[in-house]
Amino acid sequence: MRIVMTGAGNLATHLSKALQDAGNDVCQIFSRTEKSAMRLARMLKTVYTTNFDRMIRDADLYIVAISDDAIAKAVSKLPFTESLVVHTAGSISINVFADKMHNYGVLYPLQSFSKDCHVNFSEIPLFLEANTAENLTTLRSIATSLSAKVYELTSEKRLSLHLAAVFGANFANSLYAVAAQIVQEAGLPFDVLAPLLQQTVDKAIASGHPAQVQTGPAARNNQQVMQKHLEMLHTHPDWRQLYRQLSDCIQNQQNAVRF
Amino acid sequence: MRIVMTGAGNLATHLSKALQDAGNDVCQIFSRTEKSAMRLARMLKTVYTTNFDRMIRDADLYIVAISDDAIAKAVSKLPFTESLVVHTAGSISINVFADKMHNYGVLYPLQSFSKDCHVNFSEIPLFLEANTAENLTTLRSIATSLSAKVYELTSEKRLSLHLAAVFGANFANSLYAVAAQIVQEAGLPFDVLAPLLQQTVDKAIASGHPAQVQTGPAARNNQQVMQKHLEMLHTHPDWRQLYRQLSDCIQNQQNAVRF
Repeated sequence: MRIVMTGAGNLATHLSKALQDAGNDVCQIFSRTEKSAMRLARMLKTVYTTNFDRMIRDADLYIVAISDDAIAKAVSKLPFTESLVVHTAGSISINVFADKMHNYGVLYPLQSFSKDCHVNFSEIPLFLEANTAENLTTLRSIATSLSAKVYELTSEKRLSLHLAAVFGANFANSLYAVAAQIVQEAGLPFDVLAPLLQQTVDKAIASGHPAQVQTGPAARNNQQVMQKHLEMLHTHPDWRQLYRQLSDCIQNQQNAVRF
Repeated sequence: MRIVMTGAGNLATHLSKALQDAGNDVCQIFSRTEKSAMRLARMLKTVYTTNFDRMIRDADLYIVAISDDAIAKAVSKLPFTESLVVHTAGSISINVFADKMHNYGVLYPLQSFSKDCHVNFSEIPLFLEANTAENLTTLRSIATSLSAKVYELTSEKRLSLHLAAVFGANFANSLYAVAAQIVQEAGLPFDVLAPLLQQTVDKAIASGHPAQVQTGPAARNNQQVMQKHLEMLHTHPDWRQLYRQLSDCIQNQQNAVRF
């Protein structure tokens, strides 16, 4: 397949490489930022443009892999209406294409991408949506060449999945950052916590129901320990508030598990 | 070494096995719950008692591996004052022994233990404290036979570490539980999130500074997406409140990283 990639950020980079490795021809990179476009085009040994008017017109697939809030504007500028075009965003409905395009869909990889991190695409769940059965078949054949985990998902459910990812990944990471600051203030390296954090994720996943493997002072309703922790947090009122709210959240979850 | 284990819960079980595997003689199990005491004693092919008066008096080390809030009372009932005794609790000061005992300390394993989960003790960080240099040497020789990661730590810093573990593990798990409920309400299995959650932990640890690898709508200050998520949470006011607070927490962390 001849594919034009719009975007040259982390996701566009990893996705382009994976598509090329799967035997596709990533025939052009489009990005508003010439430096990024050039860098990715060189890496893939392909061409780039920063001008929508110079975008290749006869590709089989156009992928818009840019930040969620830039998608609607980019779609309005694409110089075609018939070719198959998809975006890769968790929070944007498939309807962003509906007014202009005739063949469109979504290919949402549930992962967060960093520039330097190696990504094994075959383990990343891919969520597909398309406006016709034929377009879905096309997307499915591309997706299954990239990953072993391919699901069909409506825009509404994709938004739920994206919200779940914010809680389970982005928000969890912000708690790792709080934990890191606490151990560093005690003169310890963050990585003393590493085995515990990894085991916590592994156990939650293995259980299938994280609420059922919840541990800690709130789960045991150990008021003495919780009180001590709250006192320690007197210099961090925002963390203290979080401590209270997350402890309440755990106790509600425990009640829901029990009854 | 001849060791008496007080407690027969998850930690006592895993710790007893690890001590035996390292060549120690776990010569008695004490527990108030006869069934648990018997189960663990059988597993270790040793004896048990439920009566403090029948506790073996001449062991080299007594380990009190019971819940944090039961430790003070158990210490008051131990039928000796000269033998070396340690507890295993993150939140309890070494001073819990000071009024009665002459040789005491703490051996705190930073991990959460479940009955069925296999535990590789050699990877678990152990934090030691003792009332004399000689007792610390004894504890260090036991600890290094169990784990490659042995640290000396004051009670005050151990409490900080315990608080960090609550944020990084217990509270993170409660967010996994929220995420699980959201994906399940969308008809998806929790394990579609597995690669993302595991990668998030791995990346946070590899970075050494989780705030520096923070991603997501709050980190990018993507108000449109955040607003959409908040609207989706209208049936879960507690999660909505958490969403706001954790987003604020991320934005504060991002500002601290930048400036």
